[in-house]
Amino acid sequence: MLEDLKQKVYEANLKLVEYGLVILTWGNVSAIDRNKGLVVIKPSGVAYDKMRPEDMVVMDLSGRKYSGRLNPSSDTPTHLEIYRNFPEVMSIVHTHSPWAVAWAQAGRDIPAYGTTHADFAYGDIPCTRALTEDEVKDDYELNTGKVIVEEFGKRGIKPEECPAVLVHRHGPFTWGKDEIQAVQNSLILEEVAKMAFKTESIATLSGDSDVGIEDYLLDKHYLRKHGENAYYGQK
Amino acid sequence: MLEDLKQKVYEANLKLVEYGLVILTWGNVSAIDRNKGLVVIKPSGVAYDKMRPEDMVVMDLSGRKYSGRLNPSSDTPTHLEIYRNFPEVMSIVHTHSPWAVAWAQAGRDIPAYGTTHADFAYGDIPCTRALTEDEVKDDYELNTGKVIVEEFGKRGIKPEECPAVLVHRHGPFTWGKDEIQAVQNSLILEEVAKMAFKTESIATLSGDSDVGIEDYLLDKHYLRKHGENAYYGQK
Amino acid sequence: MLEDLKQKVYEANLKLVEYGLVILTWGNVSAIDRNKGLVVIKPSGVAYDKMRPEDMVVMDLSGRKYSGRLNPSSDTPTHLEIYRNFPEVMSIVHTHSPWAVAWAQAGRDIPAYGTTHADFAYGDIPCTRALTEDEVKDDYELNTGKVIVEEFGKRGIKPEECPAVLVHRHGPFTWGKDEIQAVQNSLILEEVAKMAFKTESIATLSGDSDVGIEDYLLDKHYLRKHGENAYYGQK
Amino acid sequence: MLEDLKQKVYEANLKLVEYGLVILTWGNVSAIDRNKGLVVIKPSGVAYDKMRPEDMVVMDLSGRKYSGRLNPSSDTPTHLEIYRNFPEVMSIVHTHSPWAVAWAQAGRDIPAYGTTHADFAYGDIPCTRALTEDEVKDDYELNTGKVIVEEFGKRGIKPEECPAVLVHRHGPFTWGKDEIQAVQNSLILEEVAKMAFKTESIATLSGDSDVGIEDYLLDKHYLRKHGENAYYGQK
Repeated sequence: MLEDLKQKVYEANLKLVEYGLVILTWGNVSAIDRNKGLVVIKPSGVAYDKMRPEDMVVMDLSGRKYSGRLNPSSDTPTHLEIYRNFPEVMSIVHTHSPWAVAWAQAGRDIPAYGTTHADFAYGDIPCTRALTEDEVKDDYELNTGKVIVEEFGKRGIKPEECPAVLVHRHGPFTWGKDEIQAVQNSLILEEVAKMAFKTESIATLSGDSDVGIEDYLLDKHYLRKHGENAYYGQK
Repeated sequence: MLEDLKQKVYEANLKLVEYGLVILTWGNVSAIDRNKGLVVIKPSGVAYDKMRPEDMVVMDLSGRKYSGRLNPSSDTPTHLEIYRNFPEVMSIVHTHSPWAVAWAQAGRDIPAYGTTHADFAYGDIPCTRALTEDEVKDDYELNTGKVIVEEFGKRGIKPEECPAVLVHRHGPFTWGKDEIQAVQNSLILEEVAKMAFKTESIATLSGDSDVGIEDYLLDKHYLRKHGENAYYGQK
Repeated sequence: MLEDLKQKVYEANLKLVEYGLVILTWGNVSAIDRNKGLVVIKPSGVAYDKMRPEDMVVMDLSGRKYSGRLNPSSDTPTHLEIYRNFPEVMSIVHTHSPWAVAWAQAGRDIPAYGTTHADFAYGDIPCTRALTEDEVKDDYELNTGKVIVEEFGKRGIKPEECPAVLVHRHGPFTWGKDEIQAVQNSLILEEVAKMAFKTESIATLSGDSDVGIEDYLLDKHYLRKHGENAYYGQK
Repeated sequence: MLEDLKQKVYEANLKLVEYGLVILTWGNVSAIDRNKGLVVIKPSGVAYDKMRPEDMVVMDLSGRKYSGRLNPSSDTPTHLEIYRNFPEVMSIVHTHSPWAVAWAQAGRDIPAYGTTHADFAYGDIPCTRALTEDEVKDDYELNTGKVIVEEFGKRGIKPEECPAVLVHRHGPFTWGKDEIQAVQNSLILEEVAKMAFKTESIATLSGDSDVGIEDYLLDKHYLRKHGENAYYGQK
């Protein structure tokens, strides 16, 4: 059962390699069957070229293994916490893609600097607060999910309007309405993170710090693609 | 009809992928048949590996669809405005290539720093002014074309001497005498944008800000390749 | 004899090319048979695409050639000094990968800035002191090994907890429990070196210098993967 | 006649593409037959994937075409001036590789910052002075060769000890004892130029400007590879 979703999650994990977002065993993709309340996720520490669809692990939302021979990704409790709190999210991706990681390690949000960003997210990409020592010592991966949910709640960001987050000193998580979109969002986030760095650098070299997209341009680009009256793409 | 131009525009769009200038569905190429007054352009939001020559959309210069099953690129009104005002332009390319985008997001012209630039354009690559809120709210894509035309007019730049522009907070458009040249100009622009950043950075690290190509060297390189007595290349 | 280890060392050397860590004839991998006290290492200055498994050179730990037609890598005395002093090390890799080299040339340790680093090493990646003129003039490659050993001793770093070092003005050496891990560690080091630069740059652009992983987060990530109660990966 | 050298020069030009040092029609390789006093060089503005060995152009050292259907590279007079003045040089390569171009556009020498550089060149890579307006207006390409020769003479650099130069605001030329070495030197120069930028940046971020290889380490690395008693590589 769930063979179809296992195949899709397997293929989505391989996309991370194809897109150049992961090396070695880094990164992981999961997807949820909301009807069954079951999550399919990559096994922990398995090489991408050795992995097979049947190696995907099935978990229930409470964190118990439902089926699968291998250990699930060590980031599984983070994924589950996001699924429990963000009901629109159908697939989650975690990578250590270098530009997104760099912003996370610097503890900074990625500012919305242009239309590439605005086509992707409706505002800055938030970086979470640092986890406390206690949050790290016990249930670290669960608490990582909790600070993500907390950050979106605190700032009033809707997860469907911002499909990405940076975990402080760690790296990005992205999501989407299916595993294809979630993986594409990891690719776009990396592109946006790279562009944001270059933008600040170029502005700084000229002594000009007038960067940051105008609100009305952010609105326009985000909404023409994702709003009610979106007119980008095909029907 | 226009099957030949559709094939060419299709292939030119795929070149954007091959050159590493676009990811996912980003970017678009169009070309014009000046005799017929018809423009062939990529459909909106279609993946490059799914796209076929017959998916290209044909528009007339007033913005009405002439033929084609799919919606044209959302940037179509920008392309049309350029074709209406720059009669030498036979093909237009839009990408979100990261270095060109970064200069656009920083709102800066790309300064002519060396002979690579001078082989390409006869002076700095202009970045447009920001669009106003009104210009963004209504007819945004048309107004994007208008600020491009306005910028060239205001500065007295001839489009055939500068085959590229940066739209403020957005990204590059390039053009050429055919779709091959227009796409190559996108590739060269990205290279020039990258080199310009590195040049400023290296100059700044040494405390030396003496950068910028000498006028006579700009003349020499631009004109030996594009001038009346050009001697670069074969006849 | 040692044909199996020669084959493995040969393949590991080719991995350096596949991972994009070396160009031309740069870089070298060795591995040791601790029972026999023999080290297999790449020959000096041979192109990767011309190299065959039987070209690998076998050295004893005192630095005498045991077998092989070709000259061993000029870095052989460095490898041997590391094997003699770090008994857990079973394979050593040297590259001139650009980000690691840049930190080495700047004479700086790579600071632990996030969890990618903490998954790899239990603290900063040390850069050795400069060799003195005398140390360079005579037995340079042996003395390179000695300053590596000295640096770990002086700082009280265990080689198994930090599988990488930067040699001042030169570049990285990494190691592992076998040649696969040693090569992967070169790849990870390059990634970590790149991320550390980007992190500092992004922090500096915002005027915020609050970077550096918290000790408890470093502990968590390093130990969940490498500690006694590690729970990352499969059993 | 010279068919063998045409084939070699043809293949060396294609290596520039394989190494990622050129795009489109950029760059050129030449080689000289010193006995005959004839130089084989790439034709001007021909695409690499269209080019054939028989398209290579043969010039005599005075600048007259000896044989060949096509126009030679517009940089031919620069190559010839180098061959006339640097008798050890057997092949010359010109590219617009981005890191080397960036140093050239910033008008800076590439400082010797580490052993990767010292394995390649015996000191900083010189950047020429700017050409004057007169030098650019008439015989520009010949004068480009002259300022290269002038720079080496003025500084007392031996061309065989420094196989590369940066032409101010323009880009790199490299050379070698054959076309394989000359092309490899273009690849190494780009790597060294990249590392030098990263080194300065990393040093600057820490407020530490103590960079620059020690003279005795430069001597050691250069001479162990290129000196009379060189012991790097095979015999």
